[in-house]
Amino acid sequence: MANTIGKIFTLTTFGESHGLALGGIIDGCPSNVTISLDFIQSELNRRKPGQSKIVTQRKEADEVKFLSGIFEGKTTGTSIGFIIENENQKSNDYDHLKDTFRPNHADFTYDQKYGNRDYRGGGRSSARETVNWVVAGAIAKQIIPEIKINAFVSSVGEIFIDKPYQELDFSLTETNPVRCPDLETASKMEAYISEIKKEGDSVGGTITCVIQNVPIGLGEPIFDKLHAQLGKAMLSINAVKGFEYGGGFCAAKMKGSEHNDLFNEDGTTRSNLSGGIQGGISNGMDIYFRVAFKPVATLLQKQEVLTNDGKIIEQQGKGRHDPCVVPRAVPIVEALAAMVLVDFTLMDKVNK
Amino acid sequence: MANTIGKIFTLTTFGESHGLALGGIIDGCPSNVTISLDFIQSELNRRKPGQSKIVTQRKEADEVKFLSGIFEGKTTGTSIGFIIENENQKSNDYDHLKDTFRPNHADFTYDQKYGNRDYRGGGRSSARETVNWVVAGAIAKQIIPEIKINAFVSSVGEIFIDKPYQELDFSLTETNPVRCPDLETASKMEAYISEIKKEGDSVGGTITCVIQNVPIGLGEPIFDKLHAQLGKAMLSINAVKGFEYGGGFCAAKMKGSEHNDLFNEDGTTRSNLSGGIQGGISNGMDIYFRVAFKPVATLLQKQEVLTNDGKIIEQQGKGRHDPCVVPRAVPIVEALAAMVLVDFTLMDKVNK
Amino acid sequence: MANTIGKIFTLTTFGESHGLALGGIIDGCPSNVTISLDFIQSELNRRKPGQSKIVTQRKEADEVKFLSGIFEGKTTGTSIGFIIENENQKSNDYDHLKDTFRPNHADFTYDQKYGNRDYRGGGRSSARETVNWVVAGAIAKQIIPEIKINAFVSSVGEIFIDKPYQELDFSLTETNPVRCPDLETASKMEAYISEIKKEGDSVGGTITCVIQNVPIGLGEPIFDKLHAQLGKAMLSINAVKGFEYGGGFCAAKMKGSEHNDLFNEDGTTRSNLSGGIQGGISNGMDIYFRVAFKPVATLLQKQEVLTNDGKIIEQQGKGRHDPCVVPRAVPIVEALAAMVLVDFTLMDKVNK
Amino acid sequence: MANTIGKIFTLTTFGESHGLALGGIIDGCPSNVTISLDFIQSELNRRKPGQSKIVTQRKEADEVKFLSGIFEGKTTGTSIGFIIENENQKSNDYDHLKDTFRPNHADFTYDQKYGNRDYRGGGRSSARETVNWVVAGAIAKQIIPEIKINAFVSSVGEIFIDKPYQELDFSLTETNPVRCPDLETASKMEAYISEIKKEGDSVGGTITCVIQNVPIGLGEPIFDKLHAQLGKAMLSINAVKGFEYGGGFCAAKMKGSEHNDLFNEDGTTRSNLSGGIQGGISNGMDIYFRVAFKPVATLLQKQEVLTNDGKIIEQQGKGRHDPCVVPRAVPIVEALAAMVLVDFTLMDKVNK
Repeated sequence: MANTIGKIFTLTTFGESHGLALGGIIDGCPSNVTISLDFIQSELNRRKPGQSKIVTQRKEADEVKFLSGIFEGKTTGTSIGFIIENENQKSNDYDHLKDTFRPNHADFTYDQKYGNRDYRGGGRSSARETVNWVVAGAIAKQIIPEIKINAFVSSVGEIFIDKPYQELDFSLTETNPVRCPDLETASKMEAYISEIKKEGDSVGGTITCVIQNVPIGLGEPIFDKLHAQLGKAMLSINAVKGFEYGGGFCAAKMKGSEHNDLFNEDGTTRSNLSGGIQGGISNGMDIYFRVAFKPVATLLQKQEVLTNDGKIIEQQGKGRHDPCVVPRAVPIVEALAAMVLVDFTLMDKVNK
Repeated sequence: MANTIGKIFTLTTFGESHGLALGGIIDGCPSNVTISLDFIQSELNRRKPGQSKIVTQRKEADEVKFLSGIFEGKTTGTSIGFIIENENQKSNDYDHLKDTFRPNHADFTYDQKYGNRDYRGGGRSSARETVNWVVAGAIAKQIIPEIKINAFVSSVGEIFIDKPYQELDFSLTETNPVRCPDLETASKMEAYISEIKKEGDSVGGTITCVIQNVPIGLGEPIFDKLHAQLGKAMLSINAVKGFEYGGGFCAAKMKGSEHNDLFNEDGTTRSNLSGGIQGGISNGMDIYFRVAFKPVATLLQKQEVLTNDGKIIEQQGKGRHDPCVVPRAVPIVEALAAMVLVDFTLMDKVNK
Repeated sequence: MANTIGKIFTLTTFGESHGLALGGIIDGCPSNVTISLDFIQSELNRRKPGQSKIVTQRKEADEVKFLSGIFEGKTTGTSIGFIIENENQKSNDYDHLKDTFRPNHADFTYDQKYGNRDYRGGGRSSARETVNWVVAGAIAKQIIPEIKINAFVSSVGEIFIDKPYQELDFSLTETNPVRCPDLETASKMEAYISEIKKEGDSVGGTITCVIQNVPIGLGEPIFDKLHAQLGKAMLSINAVKGFEYGGGFCAAKMKGSEHNDLFNEDGTTRSNLSGGIQGGISNGMDIYFRVAFKPVATLLQKQEVLTNDGKIIEQQGKGRHDPCVVPRAVPIVEALAAMVLVDFTLMDKVNK
Repeated sequence: MANTIGKIFTLTTFGESHGLALGGIIDGCPSNVTISLDFIQSELNRRKPGQSKIVTQRKEADEVKFLSGIFEGKTTGTSIGFIIENENQKSNDYDHLKDTFRPNHADFTYDQKYGNRDYRGGGRSSARETVNWVVAGAIAKQIIPEIKINAFVSSVGEIFIDKPYQELDFSLTETNPVRCPDLETASKMEAYISEIKKEGDSVGGTITCVIQNVPIGLGEPIFDKLHAQLGKAMLSINAVKGFEYGGGFCAAKMKGSEHNDLFNEDGTTRSNLSGGIQGGISNGMDIYFRVAFKPVATLLQKQEVLTNDGKIIEQQGKGRHDPCVVPRAVPIVEALAAMVLVDFTLMDKVNK
C-alpha cells in the first residue's frame, strides 16, 4: 500500500468508504500561509454528492475537521491532520457484496492481493477517498494563489466541446451541473446523462484542465518531469484510463515542421503544442492536459458477478451511483494539479 | 533534479549527451540472480543508433561496463554500478547551440531553471540518457523472466496497425527496421519515414506495449497504482505526450454496459477493456497500453531559434538525428515497463 | 517538517500538545495481522501520566480510536488511521508562554524557523507526540511477536544498575514505578526522584533496551544499518542526548584482541560486545543498546526566560511535569525499537 | 540494500573493496556552485592510506574522476557522477577469506543475508566505501563554506584530551599523524598506536566534531531532527558504536537546574550543554558531538575463525591494516557532517 502523494508537500491518507472517517496528514506545508476554511469547505461542496439530478443522490455532509497544523488562521509549518467523518457508515446496503466480486471494481484484485478486505462500498478502493484530496488541494491552491487552475468537462460519451480552450469562458463552468463551460454543449451533455441514468446505465467522459500563469522552471527531470507527475496524479483517480498533454495523441500524427513551437523574442512561443512544458520543465506558457474517464462500473441493472466460491450469478445493481462521473471529478482534477504544482514550486526553491 | 526511478528496485542515473560517460546505480536488486551480460548488450544494440537507414547514423559503441554488484555471474544484493563511455564527446558539432535556444528542446527551460547548462547535444536533457534505462531494464527482465513484455510500433504519422494485438505475431517485431510486427504496415511506415527523412523533416508515432503472464496482485494503491506508475515511467521518455491503457480514450465514449469486463468462473474476464488492471492492481489478464510520441524537434532544415540575448535568428539544423523516434524507443518502453514490474513484484512480497 | 518514520512500515503523525487531537497513519502494515486493541491500550497506559507519585499528575485518558485499516479484528493491508483526542486542550495554563522562550525548550528554535508556533504546552515539540509512537509500536509488536523487546531504566542521575543485563529478571520491570528490574536499585532511584521532585528540580537518566530472539539478516547497509536506524529512532525521542550499542563508548578504550567476539561452530559468538549486529546486519545474538536522557527542562522553580522582545525575565515554572522522564520513556523506547524491527523484517523479505 | 544518504542533497554509492571501481551519484546539488577539484583531491588525500607510519601502508592513488554534472568548473544542477578506480583489485591477498568468516567482520552476516558475497577484502562492507563519502563531503563543504566543521581525535584507548574544545587550536589537527590538536596528547597517542601496531593488535578511539557558524533553523522535526540525522550518519561509519552530542551521556547524570542553558538577550545562551540544538533545530550556538570507534577487527595475530562448513580454525591475520582507525576517520566524520548540513540547509529553504 502506498498512501502518500508528493515529495516535499505530501499528503498521506486513510479511510474506507464506510469506515468511521476518512482523513489525511499534509506534511511539508510552508508556515505562515493564511488558510480560509470556508474556501476549503466550498471546494468540498463542489465534489459532494447530491448537488444536482445528474449525480448520485447519496447524502454526505463532507465536513472537514482540522486537528493540527493550523493555529490562529495560519499554518505553523507542522503537519496538518484532518478528518471527514462518515455519516452513514453503518448502512447495510453493501451486505450483498461480502461474497461477490463485481465486474470492473477492485473487489477481486484487493481480495487476491490482501486476502482480506472491507467489502462495504468498495472499502479503501472507493472514490470516497478523493474527499481527502480535495481538502489538500484546497490548501495547495491557497499556497499558490497566483497560478490559475481551471478544469472542466470537455466530453461526455460522444458529445464534446468543439472549440479550442482559448475560446471558452471558464467562469461558466460552475453555472451548470455538468461543469462544461460551453453552455450549448453542456445542455446536450446534461440531457444525455439523464437519458443514460434512466437506462440504469453509465457513460464515460473527459476532463480538460488548463493551468495559467505558471512560473518558468517547475519540474524536476529526469524522473520527476512536470507532465509525468501530473500524469501519474491523474491516473491515480478512480476510473481514469488515459492522459495526454499539449498536442497529445494528435502530436503522434504530425510532422516536426508542423509541431514545433517557434519562439518570440521574449521567450514565449507563437504556438503551444508543447502544452507549456519543455523537457519536463514549465516554460511559462499555458499548461493543458486531458484526462479520460471510463464509464462507472456500477450499473442499476442486472449484471453477472463472480462469487468467492467461483460461481457466476446475476445481481441487481443497488444504491445511489453517478451515471457519469466527470462532473464531480472536476474539482478532484484541480485538487491534484494544485498539489503537484505546489510540490514543484517548493522543490524549485531548493535550487535557487 | 530527480534522477531516481523506482521505490524498492531503484535506478539512479547520471550523464550528459557529450560528457565523459553516462551511467547509473541499481539498488534493491535481489541477490543470486544470474545475469547474462550478453543479453544486456543485445538490448543495448536494439536501442543503438546506426542500425538501419531510417534511424540516426551517429556511431556509438554503447558498451556497458559493470563496476560492482555482480560477482562471478550473479548479483550479490549490493548496489550495481555501471557506466557507458561516450566516444565522441569532444565533438564540436554543437558549438552553435551555446548561445541559442532551439524550439521544442529543453535548452530554454534548463537555462532558465538552472542558470547554467551543458549545451552540447542537449546535455542532460538528451535522449542519450535512455541508454542507462536499457541497461537497468535488461537486468529487470532477468529477474522476472516469466513475464513477457512486448512493445512494438503501432503507428507512424497517419499509418497505423488496423488489428487488435491478439492477431499479431510479436516474433516479427525485430524483423524490420520500424519494429512493427504487421509486415504490410511495416513497409508502408518504412517508406514514409524515408520520405520524411529526405524532406529533412520528422514525424511522430505511437508504441503499443503488451505484457503477458503477469501474476495477480501487482500494484500499490492508492498512490502507486500499477497503471499510474507505468504511465509516469512512459511520460518520462523524451518526446512522449500521452499514455492510455486498456480501453483508454475510447473508454471515455462508451457506456458501462458495453465497457464492463464480465468474469469467468476462474476469475479471468471474458473481455479485457480494463487492460489487466482493476483498482490499480493486476488481475492476471494481459496488460496493454499505448504511448504517443511527438515528432523529433531537430529538423535538418532552416528553423528560427532564440538567442540568449533575445533575438530570433535562422539556424540550419545539423548533425545526425532520427527522422522518427519510435523504432528506437521500442526497447526503451520495454525497459521501463520491466523496471516498474520488478519494483511492484518486490513490493508485493512485503505483504505476503 | 518531517513527520514520517520508516521506509516500508511507516508512521506519519500529527498533533500538538493542546490541539484537538493527535494521531497518525500507519502505512505498509501487512494484511491479515490479528490486532488486539486491549494490548494497544495497555501499552498506552504504561506511557500515561498520573501512574504513580514520581511522574506528572496531569490527567489524560489517552484512548486511541482507530478509523480505518482494521476490519473485523484484522489488518486489511490498507492504511491505518487513528486519533487520540486531547481532553484538556482549552487549558489556559500556558498563556504565560505566548511571549517567552524557555531555556532548553524548542520555543526559540521553532519560532525562529517557522515564524509562527502553537505555544500552548510546547505545541508540536511536546513529548505528547510520543503517544502516537506507542500506538504504532503496539501494532508493530503484534506483527513480530517472536522478537522480545525489553527496555528498562538502567540509571537515574548517579544511581545505576551495577550488573550485566543477563543477570536481570525483566518480569520485574513493571513491578515498580521507576521501571527498573533490579529492585534494590529501583528503590534508591524512587527515593532520589521523590527528593528531586520536592526541590522542584529534575534529573536525567538512561534506558537500556535488550532485544532477544532476533532473526539473522535484519538491517540494510550501507546507509540503513540496523544500529544506525535504531540510533536515529532513539535520538528522535525528546530529551535524548546519546546512543550506544554493544560495547559502545567503552569499546573505544579497548584493544581488538579483547573486543573481538570469537565464533562458536554454530555461528553464535562466545562473547557479544558487538551487540548482536555485524556490518549493520543482525547476527542472531542479543541486540542491546543504551539511551541517555537529559533532565527535563521545565523546573518548578523560578528561572530566567527570554521574551520575544529580547528581554530576560524571571518566570516561575508551572504545570505538572515529570521530575524524571525515564520511567515513562521505557514504553516509548520499546515502541520505536519495534517499529524499526518490523521495518527491517519487511525489507528483508524483498531480498528473499 | 540501502545505498542512498540524504533527502534533498543525496549521495547514492556503489563499489566493492576489490572491484573495478567505487563511485557515486550526487543528486540535488544546487546549480552554479563553483567546484575546486583540487580541494576535493586534498580531502581524499587526508583519508588515503599510507600517509604515515601509524596507518595502513596499502597503496591507493584514490583519484576521483567526475563524469557529469560539473561543466566549465560549475555545477549544472544535474546529477554528478564520479568514480574512483581501484588499482590493486586483482590481488590474491584475500583468497583465504573465501571460505571463512572472520570475527567482528560482516563476512558472516552478509553471507547469511544475501547467500552470496564478494569476499575479497570485505567486498561491499569494507571501509573503502568511505572514499565515496569524502568526495561528496568535499562538494558539500563548498556549498556551505561559511559553516566551519572541525573534527579531531579526542581519545585513543585510555588516552584522551583533558580540555574543553574551546581551548584547542584546530589548525594544529593536521600537523600530526594522529589528527589530535592537543600536541602533547597527540604524541602520547602516536607512541601508543606504534606500540599496539608492534603487538599486531588494534585499539579503539573517539572523534569529536565541532561545527561553528551554523545558521539558526536547520533540522526538520519530528523524525529528521538535526542531531538524529547526524547520529545516524555517524553510526553508518564502519566500527562506530556510539554517538552523543552536547552534554551527552554526562547529561543523564545531571539535574535540570545544572543542565539548562540560560538565554542572553540576543538569543544566544550562556552555557551550551544543548550542543547547539534545541528540539531538533539548530539554535546558532556551536554544535559538537562525539563518536566512539571500536578497535579494528583485523589483527596481525593468529585468531580463530569460522569456516563455512561450520568448523573453527586458526588463521593468521594478513594484509595491511590500520592499528587504529580514528586518525583516518577524521575526514570521514567531517564529510558526513557536511552532507547532513547541506541537506538541512536546502530543506530549510523550502519553508522560507
